[in-house]
Amino acid sequence: MSSAPTLREIVRPATFLPAPRLSERFASELTLVVETFQHTGSFKFRAAYNVARSVPHPRILAASSGNFGQALAYACRLLGKGCTVVMPANSAGVKIAAVERHGATVDRIDTRTTTRAARVAELARQDPEAYVASAYDDPLVIQGNATLGAEIAAAARPFDAVIVPVGGGGLSSGIVTGLRAAGSFAELWCAEPKLSNDASRSFASGSLQRNERESESLADGARTLSLGDHNWEILRATLIGVVEVDEPQIAEGVRLLFAEANLKAEPTGALPIGALLARPGPFRGRRVACVVSGGNVDPALYARLLEPGFAG
Amino acid sequence: MSSAPTLREIVRPATFLPAPRLSERFASELTLVVETFQHTGSFKFRAAYNVARSVPHPRILAASSGNFGQALAYACRLLGKGCTVVMPANSAGVKIAAVERHGATVDRIDTRTTTRAARVAELARQDPEAYVASAYDDPLVIQGNATLGAEIAAAARPFDAVIVPVGGGGLSSGIVTGLRAAGSFAELWCAEPKLSNDASRSFASGSLQRNERESESLADGARTLSLGDHNWEILRATLIGVVEVDEPQIAEGVRLLFAEANLKAEPTGALPIGALLARPGPFRGRRVACVVSGGNVDPALYARLLEPGFAG
Repeated sequence: MSSAPTLREIVRPATFLPAPRLSERFASELTLVVETFQHTGSFKFRAAYNVARSVPHPRILAASSGNFGQALAYACRLLGKGCTVVMPANSAGVKIAAVERHGATVDRIDTRTTTRAARVAELARQDPEAYVASAYDDPLVIQGNATLGAEIAAAARPFDAVIVPVGGGGLSSGIVTGLRAAGSFAELWCAEPKLSNDASRSFASGSLQRNERESESLADGARTLSLGDHNWEILRATLIGVVEVDEPQIAEGVRLLFAEANLKAEPTGALPIGALLARPGPFRGRRVACVVSGGNVDPALYARLLEPGFAG
Repeated sequence: MSSAPTLREIVRPATFLPAPRLSERFASELTLVVETFQHTGSFKFRAAYNVARSVPHPRILAASSGNFGQALAYACRLLGKGCTVVMPANSAGVKIAAVERHGATVDRIDTRTTTRAARVAELARQDPEAYVASAYDDPLVIQGNATLGAEIAAAARPFDAVIVPVGGGGLSSGIVTGLRAAGSFAELWCAEPKLSNDASRSFASGSLQRNERESESLADGARTLSLGDHNWEILRATLIGVVEVDEPQIAEGVRLLFAEANLKAEPTGALPIGALLARPGPFRGRRVACVVSGGNVDPALYARLLEPGFAG
C-alpha cells in the first residue's frame, strides 16, 4: 500500500469559481467550489480512494447505484484491488457501464426480492477478505472528504459560511472536519431535499431521525434514509442549519448554474443554489462557498431540466 | 488609465482539465484549456479588456452579436468607459440583455437595410472620440489573447500541439504569439466549421481567402467571412494545419464534452473536439491542448444538442 500515491497526491483540487452574477442575484459573495471535474466526476473519489488505500483488504465491496460505486471502481483500479458493486438490476445502463468501465464487477440484484444491504452481507460472508465500504458512515470516508474542507480553508480570503449538499452526511461531516483542522470557523450549512428531510428533522430535534422510505427527489445523491452515525456525531456539534429545498428549487438551481455560471451540475450538486433560493436570508452580505458536489447526470434528464419550470 | 488593473491582474486564468476519457477515446493525451469560466463566459474578455484599457479613447464602438460585445461591455464598465455595440434588431433577447446588463448601449439595426459595418462607420463619424474595436483584426486583440498562449506555455509538462477554434483568427494568432514569446514550439492547429472553411482554403492556397456569405454553422463564433489581415500575417507563418469540422462533428463535440468531461461548452468551443473526430491522426500518441473557447449557449439549443444525432 505504501507505494501507492497518497490521496493528496492523486486528488484533483476542487475548482474555485467566483460567481459574480449569482452573487448579485442573492446579494452574497458566492464562490462555487466545484467537484464536477474531480476523478469520476464527483467528490466521492476523495472518500473512495482514501478507504481503498487505507484498508489492508485486497477486495472492496459496496452497494451503490451512483457516484460512489463509480469512484470506488476507479480507486480500486488505481490501487490494483478487486471491487464489487451491488446495484439494482434495473439501474440505468450508463450507471452500470460507468462502474464496469473501470474493471469492477457489478452484482445485479432484483430489489423486489432482496435488499442491497442483505446482498452485500451475503457477499461479505462469502469473501471474508473483502472490506465492506460505506459511502458515508465510516471515519475513512470522513477523512477523505476532509481534504475538501482543507482546500476551502486555504482560500486566500476566508469564507463566512459553506453550504454543502447532504444525504448520508459523508461530505458535510468531512468538510467541517477539514475546516476545523485547518483553523477555519466558517459556518457549516447543509442543503437537503425537502422530500427526504431527515437531516433537517435530526437537526431540529437533536436526535437522529430516519425517513421511512427512499424519496424520489431529483437529487438522487441525497435520497438516503438517514445520516450515518459517525456523520451525525460530527454534524450535531457543528451544524448551523439545514435548508430544505423543494424540487422546483433544485431544478432552478441546475438552470442557474447553467445560465449564470456555465456549469453543468447534477441535481444533487445544485442543492446549495436551491438552498439560496429557499432561504437567502442567512447568507446575505456574506462570503459563502457553495459546494457543487458532482456533475454526472443523464443527458435526457439534463435536457428536460433546462426547460423553464420543469421540476421532475 | 494607469490606475486601472492590468489585464494580467484581472483576467481569470484558464481552467486546465485533464481529460482521461477523451484521451482514451482519441488515443492522445488531452488537456482541455477552458475559457468558459472566464469573465463573461468566453476568451473574448482577454482581448476586449486589453483593447479598452490600452486605447486613450473614452468610448468604444463595435459590432458584435455574440461574445465579443458582451465582453467589451463588461470591460468598459470595469474601466469606466462608454460602450456602444451594434447588433441586428432581431438578435436573441438574451444576447441583447447580456450586453445591456453591463450598462452598454445596444444600437439595433435592421440588417435588411444596412450592414453592421456601415452603421459602425456612421456612428464613428458622429463620435470621433470613440475607438472602433475589431473582435480580431487588431494587434491589441492579439496581444490580449496572447496571455492565454502564455498560460498554455507555462504548463508543467509541455504540449506537443494546441487545437484552437478559428473564426477571424484573433484567438489562434494570439495564442501562437503568446506561446512563441514564452519559448514554446507547440504546433498550432486550427479547427474550423466546414461550412465556412475560409481559413482552411487560405492555409491550402497560401493567400487569404474569403467566404461569399456568412454560414449557418452551429459554431456561431466562427461564421466570420475571413481571417483578419493582422491575424493572417501571423497564422501564415505559424499554422501547421486547419481541420475542417462538419456540423454533426461539432454537435458530437458538444455531447462528448458534456458526457466525458462534465463540461458545458458552446458549439464554437467544441470545435477542437470536433477536429479530433474529423482527423485524429496527427494527434495520436501526443500531448494536446484543446482550447474550449467559450460556454455561452442558449438552453433550448443546448437541450437539442444533447439529443443523439442532432446536428443543427
